[in-house]
Amino acid sequence: MPASARDPVRVTFEPEGRTVSVLPGTLLIEAAGKAGIVLETPCGGQGVCGKCRVEINRNAPEPCDADRRLLTKAELDRGTRLACSVHVTQELCVLVPIATRFFEHKILTDGRGRSVALHPTVTKQHVTLPPPALSDQRADADRLLESLGRAKVDLDLGALRTLPTIIRSKDFSVTAVSAEGRLVALEPGDTTAHNYGVAFDIGTTTVVGFLMDLVNGRELAVAARTNPQIPFGDDVVSRIRYATTSPNGLRELQERIVGCLNDIIAECCQTSGIGPEHLYEATVVGNTTMSHLFLGVDPEFIAQAPYVAGFRRSVNVLGRDVGLRIHPHGVVHALPNIAGFVGSDTVGVILAAGMHGADERALAIDIGTNGELVVGNKDRLVTCSTAAGPAFEGARIRFGMRAADGAIDKFIINHDVQFNVIGNLPPRGLCGTAVIDVVAELLRVGAVEATGRLLPPDEMPASVPDPIRRRVVQGEKALEFIIARKEETSTGGALCLTQRDIRELQLAKGAIAAGAAILLKEFGLEPKDLGHVLLAGAFGNFIRRNMAKRIGLLPDVPTDRILYIGNAAGAGARMALQSRRCKEEANRISDCTEYLELAGRADFQQEFTNAMMFPEA
Amino acid sequence: MPASARDPVRVTFEPEGRTVSVLPGTLLIEAAGKAGIVLETPCGGQGVCGKCRVEINRNAPEPCDADRRLLTKAELDRGTRLACSVHVTQELCVLVPIATRFFEHKILTDGRGRSVALHPTVTKQHVTLPPPALSDQRADADRLLESLGRAKVDLDLGALRTLPTIIRSKDFSVTAVSAEGRLVALEPGDTTAHNYGVAFDIGTTTVVGFLMDLVNGRELAVAARTNPQIPFGDDVVSRIRYATTSPNGLRELQERIVGCLNDIIAECCQTSGIGPEHLYEATVVGNTTMSHLFLGVDPEFIAQAPYVAGFRRSVNVLGRDVGLRIHPHGVVHALPNIAGFVGSDTVGVILAAGMHGADERALAIDIGTNGELVVGNKDRLVTCSTAAGPAFEGARIRFGMRAADGAIDKFIINHDVQFNVIGNLPPRGLCGTAVIDVVAELLRVGAVEATGRLLPPDEMPASVPDPIRRRVVQGEKALEFIIARKEETSTGGALCLTQRDIRELQLAKGAIAAGAAILLKEFGLEPKDLGHVLLAGAFGNFIRRNMAKRIGLLPDVPTDRILYIGNAAGAGARMALQSRRCKEEANRISDCTEYLELAGRADFQQEFTNAMMFPEA
Repeated sequence: MPASARDPVRVTFEPEGRTVSVLPGTLLIEAAGKAGIVLETPCGGQGVCGKCRVEINRNAPEPCDADRRLLTKAELDRGTRLACSVHVTQELCVLVPIATRFFEHKILTDGRGRSVALHPTVTKQHVTLPPPALSDQRADADRLLESLGRAKVDLDLGALRTLPTIIRSKDFSVTAVSAEGRLVALEPGDTTAHNYGVAFDIGTTTVVGFLMDLVNGRELAVAARTNPQIPFGDDVVSRIRYATTSPNGLRELQERIVGCLNDIIAECCQTSGIGPEHLYEATVVGNTTMSHLFLGVDPEFIAQAPYVAGFRRSVNVLGRDVGLRIHPHGVVHALPNIAGFVGSDTVGVILAAGMHGADERALAIDIGTNGELVVGNKDRLVTCSTAAGPAFEGARIRFGMRAADGAIDKFIINHDVQFNVIGNLPPRGLCGTAVIDVVAELLRVGAVEATGRLLPPDEMPASVPDPIRRRVVQGEKALEFIIARKEETSTGGALCLTQRDIRELQLAKGAIAAGAAILLKEFGLEPKDLGHVLLAGAFGNFIRRNMAKRIGLLPDVPTDRILYIGNAAGAGARMALQSRRCKEEANRISDCTEYLELAGRADFQQEFTNAMMFPEA
Repeated sequence: MPASARDPVRVTFEPEGRTVSVLPGTLLIEAAGKAGIVLETPCGGQGVCGKCRVEINRNAPEPCDADRRLLTKAELDRGTRLACSVHVTQELCVLVPIATRFFEHKILTDGRGRSVALHPTVTKQHVTLPPPALSDQRADADRLLESLGRAKVDLDLGALRTLPTIIRSKDFSVTAVSAEGRLVALEPGDTTAHNYGVAFDIGTTTVVGFLMDLVNGRELAVAARTNPQIPFGDDVVSRIRYATTSPNGLRELQERIVGCLNDIIAECCQTSGIGPEHLYEATVVGNTTMSHLFLGVDPEFIAQAPYVAGFRRSVNVLGRDVGLRIHPHGVVHALPNIAGFVGSDTVGVILAAGMHGADERALAIDIGTNGELVVGNKDRLVTCSTAAGPAFEGARIRFGMRAADGAIDKFIINHDVQFNVIGNLPPRGLCGTAVIDVVAELLRVGAVEATGRLLPPDEMPASVPDPIRRRVVQGEKALEFIIARKEETSTGGALCLTQRDIRELQLAKGAIAAGAAILLKEFGLEPKDLGHVLLAGAFGNFIRRNMAKRIGLLPDVPTDRILYIGNAAGAGARMALQSRRCKEEANRISDCTEYLELAGRADFQQEFTNAMMFPEA
């Protein structure tokens, strides 16, 4: 019987040999996901980055435009295709190269956070009630609330339903759990020693959770995961597109991130031996899109001019309303955002760094796919967001990759090249810090000009060591700098930085430097007037300050005034978990911080053009 | 292959011929329910009332104790059994006689209610927002809340999730729906003309719902249903027993009553053409047990000394949290109770009758399985509950039945007997009002003594007409008064009132009259001091005042001071729906009304003994 056009077809992924059945027309990238194989898709499957290349031995489909643009003829001939472009129409056998696989990567969980007096939102109070009698027939709820000294507080339905049983189960000794003026739960006996919560930092790429003891303020466990929304796009705009154009897309992304938080909760509970029923609160920071997706709020208009968020101020919901597996009546507090592209993670940075209370003026930079910048002090805070693009995360860089095993993460020129590879393996790519290093070092020795041009060996100044000079070769379209020769790598090919990669870095660092320049101009400040430059977030904490200054990513201030403040966004989430006052502070920060829309600035293009240049040596 | 002891067995119910399969050991009454056949079970399936008799033609099980106690030898011989006592062990064919079937009966939906200024809890406000621009990037929520003049109000998650889409769907014209200071929903355009709610009176037997227009205060539809918890017991104590002893019993009863309310909502919406998505609020009154079961709150301790309720003050929940099919973010307000056996239905009666604001002292009586009584005025209100038992609803009366088709509901003696039958059918039983009539008339002519003794014909005074005298005959155990001869009835047997029935009536009316006497004593009042006697509830509004006074059920006040106030409990629920102030009034009534526990009164037994006597003619 001939197969119908709607019969499922089989796709086998090698070397695992894993086979799945999919409907004709399914994207190969989705088939891979179904087989549990996650591919690198920094561009979100848009056929732009060329990271999701796979090899199809037989029946490879005709190359599409993206294939032809991003792959060499030799690759096309041997069946290499972009998995995001192939629609499965017949049985296929697909080899997934190691470079295409998505690996867990370095995750930053540390973070500066001011010490905070404990005033958690969820509080416990233990009482022993007088038992009822014919002479005292008060209802159970009245009896309890009067003993608590709060006769008219609202009782949550869940607490009310079991109230009669619970107050009697330990002889009228009972602990009341309250949040936001409501009585949310009851527990038999005295459980006041057990009050825990979890603080989350939801990054576009990485999600971190901290389990905190809210009786003594101690951190009991930390766990991190890669954001499981990544298969739907590496940047927030791709995710918004997926959420708003796919049927149930928003719900799918919401469930994915909540599933991730639940995994983190489970791991933290396992590590610390705390039961999830004793987690009464979760606080959450993230960029504005992550906050919207976590709560299931339509993010569509964040991505369209004039880039408006659905909500700004903090949102309180019940854990069960978003699917979070904490106490059945536990609460969730999403910290406030500032604007469509400056989220509660930036509020967390300001809160944790204490910028809103400081006399000195500082610049805080959180570098990711978008770079968020804040300048100011207690008198005034101004923030902006720059579309740095994913270059710092390795995307759009020919051999770029995340800071995972096999990535070069440090690079210096000492007569010839010297580099460090994560996991002590043969290198397979460059992570963002190494891209900065390579360019900074080539600038230092004079192999790259301030304009960004990689010089041909014969134009290089005498200062360039010969081994470096010999590494500059003609590539397919332009000059390339060979970092590792093919015999040194795990991929079988040479690992190089191209002229185009340098241009990508210039765009990325130019965006951030232009943002910083405009913020300083807004205050009438020079870089030297800054008390400190604060580097927040995963990427900021791995870059080398001198290298970053040399390419002009960071302003020219003495290196000892550039501080790493770790995962300050996560630290802000922890502070909000520990204290209602910090929650209020966060809302005040959100209310007061000005957002500067670079798209609305006449001078942005000029500043950006200036900032793309590298500083003269 | 021999059937295993755990194989399902088939039970067929005749005359429908409906067959169901049940596990061995299932009660026959449950099998009937599974077949959609509801049987009369005033005692809650306790083997006490004998109303659930069915005929089993073959394989009838050995009679149990309850069968032997309540059925005659002839009945036992022909296979009559109590359906509540038979455990199915093998295939059965069961005939369900008409008298055993539960019929819908007269339901009172009217009710006195003071006119109320509209201040609904759920309010609507229409605004047109300035559209966002690069020069005005406020988040959608800020934009909305600032236009509403309420910048820091909490937004419900449901409203927040769709906010970006909804404000744009009619060009930034939007209606905000608020409740209790929270913004619960958003609707595109101007929908302020549509604001509806539903008020419920959940009785142990009957449930009534009123759909109200909260813009103009009009009642748009009324619907009523029999409480679908009846198969689990006719009185509150049986239901509490079921809720607390059966696995998932509480949940089952909760789901049943909510299903019933949803049916009523569907019918009201159908009648009025209003969509359930425009019902934003429901208010609920009921006795304390019904309120607990509706919310799913453990009722166990209401039924045990010292008879303590789980909650007293009003409870606000979301409709979806209890499963009510109103607007997805609609709210439910359960009015406050007073004590374990005086519920929000009594609060509703006080509220609707305005007793808490009146100068004159009144007595309000709500007669049901329990009789709730209130005495007082604006200075002091005292309430009590008396266990009248189900006699007024026809239970424990040999030929008692509810006020359904075939029930005698009015009876007088005019030389011989004259009676009215509901539905103009041959009679099959007596409803509660007729039981009062028969006894009142027998007292009037002298055939019954003040002690309650039915006189033998030869002891009767000359005042008793001969036809009446001839109707008194010797029954199995004692004298009986024949109301309808076997050729007049639909059952093929005579319809009579027994000496024991008269005793049951004495117990029932004695309980209520004793309660009234003790409340009056508490105030130092005589009946003549009462401004009015208010008769609330279904039964109270069908009894004839003179007959009720003649048997001593009502105090001896001029008949024109006895007022029918209809379904005053339901009227109270409507008032609370119409006005937040009425909700507050209801809570004040609950806070201030004293509850008098008759079980704690030394004088109750004496008053009860006195009150069981009939007044001398």
